[in-house]
Amino acid sequence: MYKIAVCGCGVVGSGVCDALIHQREKLSRRFAREVGLAYVLDIRDLKGTPYEPYKTDSLETILSDPETEVVVITIGGLDLAADYCFRALKAGKHVVTSNKAVVAAHGPELERLAFSKNHRFMYEASVGGGIPIIRPLNICLYANDITEIQGILNGTTNYMLTGMFRRHASFDEMLARAQRKGYAEADPTADVDGFDAARKIAILSSIAYGGFVDYRKVPCRGIRDVALVDHELADKAGFAIKLIAGSRFEGGKVFISVEPKLVPRGHLLSDVNSVYNAILTKGNYTGDSLFYGQGAGKEATASAVVGDIVELLEAPAVASLPEFVDKEAEIARDERPARYYIRFTSLRPVPAGALIDLFGDDTLCLYSKVEKDPWEDIDVDVTGGVITPACTPEELEAKVPGLNPLGATLKLILKVLD
Amino acid sequence: MYKIAVCGCGVVGSGVCDALIHQREKLSRRFAREVGLAYVLDIRDLKGTPYEPYKTDSLETILSDPETEVVVITIGGLDLAADYCFRALKAGKHVVTSNKAVVAAHGPELERLAFSKNHRFMYEASVGGGIPIIRPLNICLYANDITEIQGILNGTTNYMLTGMFRRHASFDEMLARAQRKGYAEADPTADVDGFDAARKIAILSSIAYGGFVDYRKVPCRGIRDVALVDHELADKAGFAIKLIAGSRFEGGKVFISVEPKLVPRGHLLSDVNSVYNAILTKGNYTGDSLFYGQGAGKEATASAVVGDIVELLEAPAVASLPEFVDKEAEIARDERPARYYIRFTSLRPVPAGALIDLFGDDTLCLYSKVEKDPWEDIDVDVTGGVITPACTPEELEAKVPGLNPLGATLKLILKVLD
Repeated sequence: MYKIAVCGCGVVGSGVCDALIHQREKLSRRFAREVGLAYVLDIRDLKGTPYEPYKTDSLETILSDPETEVVVITIGGLDLAADYCFRALKAGKHVVTSNKAVVAAHGPELERLAFSKNHRFMYEASVGGGIPIIRPLNICLYANDITEIQGILNGTTNYMLTGMFRRHASFDEMLARAQRKGYAEADPTADVDGFDAARKIAILSSIAYGGFVDYRKVPCRGIRDVALVDHELADKAGFAIKLIAGSRFEGGKVFISVEPKLVPRGHLLSDVNSVYNAILTKGNYTGDSLFYGQGAGKEATASAVVGDIVELLEAPAVASLPEFVDKEAEIARDERPARYYIRFTSLRPVPAGALIDLFGDDTLCLYSKVEKDPWEDIDVDVTGGVITPACTPEELEAKVPGLNPLGATLKLILKVLD
Repeated sequence: MYKIAVCGCGVVGSGVCDALIHQREKLSRRFAREVGLAYVLDIRDLKGTPYEPYKTDSLETILSDPETEVVVITIGGLDLAADYCFRALKAGKHVVTSNKAVVAAHGPELERLAFSKNHRFMYEASVGGGIPIIRPLNICLYANDITEIQGILNGTTNYMLTGMFRRHASFDEMLARAQRKGYAEADPTADVDGFDAARKIAILSSIAYGGFVDYRKVPCRGIRDVALVDHELADKAGFAIKLIAGSRFEGGKVFISVEPKLVPRGHLLSDVNSVYNAILTKGNYTGDSLFYGQGAGKEATASAVVGDIVELLEAPAVASLPEFVDKEAEIARDERPARYYIRFTSLRPVPAGALIDLFGDDTLCLYSKVEKDPWEDIDVDVTGGVITPACTPEELEAKVPGLNPLGATLKLILKVLD
């Protein structure tokens, strides 16, 4: 029997177990041999669950069974999960994981170790949940020189941003809602501050550009500063606000960032809403390609893990190591001109003419409501915004202080996706 | 050296040659061996082209070279291309093709022959041009029970339909334009009448549902009857018109068709414009997934061919045959209720109330312009349309003759995509 072990029976792990139990016959028929779940390792006792018959307390039991071919690591966190990956590979097992922290931190070593053992380390589920993207980048699109990746890679923040706009809700309201629905953790930092998306774009960029991108070097900015009024102003101008994890490869350097950006309506990423994810790639042969689907969740992520297992059954060894294993990417700051969205407040409306004088002829001026003092019904604050013509970060920095003499106080700057 | 031969140096074939020449170093580095173009077989003499050094006139030369590992078949048509595929596989070579006619007609035999030789028959390029879809369906999404595929699979017709709407052009104008741009053949039947899309949805459905779908059994209707006025009426009601190649798997049966449909704006397929293609899959684990990109063209299709070659280098043999090789799919007519768009003409406007009485309370009535006689400035024809509530084909058939007593002449019926 081709035995599969699952370590970590949480949301994703239990989804993998369910899929393996449900599709046992389909898998076994395809490969003309018995393929199925054999072990579930978890600290909980799993009594009364469908996984109880497979329960084990010891990784050693799994690794010492010569019929165990694949070890699935769906444990969260970094250190224990990484340790399990290394141990399983050293014991001569294939490893499949959904843990992006492990891949982002230890991908090259784990790839090298697997290759040296003539086994495979696979992680389709680590980026984009159920969306096939690792394999398409690594194989299907390999003929291309990939020049750009733009992604909506975090379902939690996309759910929150979509909800702020649709429900006219505040950041805090949507965070509470995401937590109630199980989309956000009690400590939402990894999602809300962009660290999760940073790991994912680092993984994709490493594969696409052939140099390892250290996720700790990805300039990363979350969505905490984005207010409902920003959605309203952006919408007036024909934009949606999305947390964009993007990278570009030019002159041997990787320009990469995670930050909320204004996305023009009509752009392929502008209609990716709620918990859905999407990845847009640009290649010299294929032009724009888009991969869209559920970016998280038990079933979608389990689908990606089982897809890796199918691939392992098809091809238990590979001929090449990814290029990023031996090469570190050079990361540089993006100084290309871009358009910027700027929000400010003032005591009275700033004349559009003055804003155009400051930022340039093609400046788009957006005005929002006047805040009233709820007790005295007097105007206390005017919120305004502009979208600047394309300028470099340096030019922008030189112009922004010009808001002060106009009586305006800077509140937020976001880049516009080009 | 890992030698690759390309048979048929037309649009796609020359693109494959270009990619292999351009990416020779990248491929050779990845696989730590020389990987490159060795032969180009074509009836033209290729003098003065970059392919001249590789030119051969004989398939035998290619097949008898033991270093030739992969034979790429980019010949059009059916019989010669199929013959070359069979001969190359029999000679113990891998075969990669972009020829959907061969795959749709001989897929099972060619898969079986390749498997028996411990070699591979690959055809990612046969559907969706540069979009990875065959491998994602066959591997990445295999955990799913796929229940539905909806695709825009023909770039020529999508270019024409998009152009009719955007340029207010007639079918004939857009056909001429597509021919001038090289998007449509001199004989446009295969594209315009839906036969190309039928082959593609037959291929995808065979893989997704595990039973061979004979493309000749796919109910197939092209876009010749779709007039500019249909785009205008559909747009008023919030729909775009697209040639939809779709299938559904239910109760062991495949419900499949190629036909122009009204797609609601906001649906993932409604914004797929011009020569772009997209495939939407529904699975029980992943829900909706969308794959979008250039569906045709030299570079995009070449990318898919080279992707197959990369896969071959990674995994020169596979453990399983696709299920459709041994099983024919049962194709059935779709009798589910759907909404329908109906266009008619009349001498004077038909009262909306009468149309609602005929088709049901939720009927949407759409009126178009009145045609004037250009010489006498009198009204000669009124074009009108409705979108019916959901009804079965049988119910629809019973209601449509009711147009006659209202003085209306039926012109066109299209289904609305649900």
